[in-house]
Amino acid sequence: MRMVDLIRKKRTGEEMTEPEIRYVVDGVVSGTIPDYQIAAWAMAVCFTGMTAAETARLTMAMANSGDVVDLSAIRGVKVDKHSTGGVGDKTTLILAPMVAACGVPVAKMSGRGLGHTGGTIDKLEAIAGFRTELSREAFFSQVNEIGVSVIGQSGNIAPADKKLYALRDVTGTVDSIPLIASSVMSKKIAAGADAILLDVKFGSGAFMKTAEEAIELAKAMVAIGTEVGRNTVAAITDMDQPLGRLIGNALEVREAIEILRGEGPADLRELCLELGSHMLVLGGRAGDAAEAREKLEQAIASGEALRKLGRLIAAQGGDPAVAERPELLPQAAARVTVAAAADGYVHGIDAEEIGVAAMRLGAGRAAKDDEIDYAVGIELLAKRGDRVRRGDAIAILHARADDGAAAEAREQVLGAYAFGAEPPAAQPLVYAVVSKDGVRR
Amino acid sequence: MRMVDLIRKKRTGEEMTEPEIRYVVDGVVSGTIPDYQIAAWAMAVCFTGMTAAETARLTMAMANSGDVVDLSAIRGVKVDKHSTGGVGDKTTLILAPMVAACGVPVAKMSGRGLGHTGGTIDKLEAIAGFRTELSREAFFSQVNEIGVSVIGQSGNIAPADKKLYALRDVTGTVDSIPLIASSVMSKKIAAGADAILLDVKFGSGAFMKTAEEAIELAKAMVAIGTEVGRNTVAAITDMDQPLGRLIGNALEVREAIEILRGEGPADLRELCLELGSHMLVLGGRAGDAAEAREKLEQAIASGEALRKLGRLIAAQGGDPAVAERPELLPQAAARVTVAAAADGYVHGIDAEEIGVAAMRLGAGRAAKDDEIDYAVGIELLAKRGDRVRRGDAIAILHARADDGAAAEAREQVLGAYAFGAEPPAAQPLVYAVVSKDGVRR
Repeated sequence: MRMVDLIRKKRTGEEMTEPEIRYVVDGVVSGTIPDYQIAAWAMAVCFTGMTAAETARLTMAMANSGDVVDLSAIRGVKVDKHSTGGVGDKTTLILAPMVAACGVPVAKMSGRGLGHTGGTIDKLEAIAGFRTELSREAFFSQVNEIGVSVIGQSGNIAPADKKLYALRDVTGTVDSIPLIASSVMSKKIAAGADAILLDVKFGSGAFMKTAEEAIELAKAMVAIGTEVGRNTVAAITDMDQPLGRLIGNALEVREAIEILRGEGPADLRELCLELGSHMLVLGGRAGDAAEAREKLEQAIASGEALRKLGRLIAAQGGDPAVAERPELLPQAAARVTVAAAADGYVHGIDAEEIGVAAMRLGAGRAAKDDEIDYAVGIELLAKRGDRVRRGDAIAILHARADDGAAAEAREQVLGAYAFGAEPPAAQPLVYAVVSKDGVRR
Repeated sequence: MRMVDLIRKKRTGEEMTEPEIRYVVDGVVSGTIPDYQIAAWAMAVCFTGMTAAETARLTMAMANSGDVVDLSAIRGVKVDKHSTGGVGDKTTLILAPMVAACGVPVAKMSGRGLGHTGGTIDKLEAIAGFRTELSREAFFSQVNEIGVSVIGQSGNIAPADKKLYALRDVTGTVDSIPLIASSVMSKKIAAGADAILLDVKFGSGAFMKTAEEAIELAKAMVAIGTEVGRNTVAAITDMDQPLGRLIGNALEVREAIEILRGEGPADLRELCLELGSHMLVLGGRAGDAAEAREKLEQAIASGEALRKLGRLIAAQGGDPAVAERPELLPQAAARVTVAAAADGYVHGIDAEEIGVAAMRLGAGRAAKDDEIDYAVGIELLAKRGDRVRRGDAIAILHARADDGAAAEAREQVLGAYAFGAEPPAAQPLVYAVVSKDGVRR
């Protein structure tokens, strides 16, 4: 087999066989295929696409390129959740204890944040003492004991995807549905999930700018899951503004606690109930979405979900009192108010801009090795649909100091808001659900 | 400027500006842009193409990436000829003395052969003593003195093209009209031509398989020439069988001498008159093709063209007696007959297969540093349209010995022939002529 022939084959839009795909993936990992050939191949894929079977082959070849986690020591159907990235997305902090409280085992490996998006592991580490590095045995036994554990991704998960993604990032080939779909799914499959729930976001703060693009991506991922025997459901959700009101590590833990208490912003609560209900159905703990939702609401109302968070924190070395008293979390020294410059209705809040502003305040990393300040972040007071008057506080920055950096972040937050004279059209948070049965809008 | 942005721009089909093209070409030459980014960009170009202006920008940037030969020391309009490659293509050996005899100065830099295609420099070196390396001064003064010189390409001509081509070759991105057109034209322009005549071949032995593809390529090259002020004409010619009857270095010199004597195969003579007449018009030595053709026929009839070849050989250290007595050229020890296996009409002769068979006999190089045997080659007795009977000699191999290698070559030559029960449809040798005035079929 010669890579140049496979590139030509892909260039003319032919379907690649399983051995051909494996040849490419093995060559990526071993380095025997030079990067320039991989790059040319990836660009050809961007133009000619891949069939569902071909995308599944690529996914499995990448999943099998490194460690494949065996979760069979954990009882029950292991449902993994993946979000395609967002700003203020603390759903894992909420879902993990909430669905665990309803009997779905959660053995979750999460990542750190980079750039304008945060990472669950960073958020958990805002809780003093919380350890995100556990041995595999400790991880398994914790899930079997209390039903939930969230740790940092370790080991050599899908190294082919890691290398391919790094190359795609610098060759203008990120934006391809089969390549994105196989990248996401290969990692979930290697992480050992039995079933997968995807939260595919669209809008200003997401990779997919429109709902229809997000549906296309979701379909490709669901098709892979179906092809390789992992029941997969995708919710298509709005990212035209950050999720909830709080952005920043400790702030997001605080908001997660609010939701688990039955408080907090309605959009975030609604999304968590929606995603959680799919997880319960996928995990066999509810017959349908309605039953699942009732169980979840009950877990919140009874305090069981919040107690589960406390147990998770305690099991991983953190102070469980935080679950009851979030004011114990790190708090920033300064509060800087962002005031509306004119009267109007909020039409949107550019999530990426807000993410970058939070990063500049110290909540995120511009480069991989940057230190994070857990306390800082942004509190959004006005969200889409809200009416504001000139001079009203629309957001509060939680900053280290009321200094020049905070002033810059304030301008950026102000610039992220879009106002209009009339109320904006209503927009559902969950636009559609894609499963092997089709698209339900 | 960031290469990843330029790749994305090209991926979406936008036109690149002159500074952007220069950034890419400079990066190719200096190595500051990694190969994987160049490869992704080239693949994007394969899909989205380039405008005429953009292709001209790429051509000039590559032409200016190394030495640009200044031919102004040579009097007259310097017309360069380029063929897109073929088998048995000895036209330069004929055209150079022939058009020089009509007053067009020929300052020609040629290449060596590789794989199934031969090179003019190798063919000339079949003449004992012929030197193809001259100093630039000797080259110029020879052209001013006798009107013609043919030397090997030296110096650093279009290094960007060289590097880009090598990368395209291994990334499935050779086959792109703007990339091929700019590659050819950048070298011609860097070699100092005032006007350019292109012989764009199509058919089994050529890169372009159909006449229409060849016309598209020719249009792109003529557009570049027009854009950068080099009058350019392209003849679209048939390569569905090798040109003439002889393939191999000394054999091709012999056939060139036959044509200059007024003998030799009609297809080769016709092509040389056609190409030569365009060169005379481009060089301002004839008002139109008819006048040009008359002058060329006169140069052959008078013996002036053949005498010019003798002077060319003498000036570059070879034995000028060869021009009168081609039997002085090296001759192979063995003759091996290829016999028809059945009755029928010859419908085609796969030129690439014939080229590979000749290479295997020793006439060409499989790798860059292989030695060539000037004497060996293939003599085609039957050509398209000829009727043959089972057992008739259709070709003769000129081989080192009647051995196993010759037997293999015999099978390959036999396999290159396509026969039919009925005579094949007539096919013109020159299918069309493309100039700035349009396509004339």
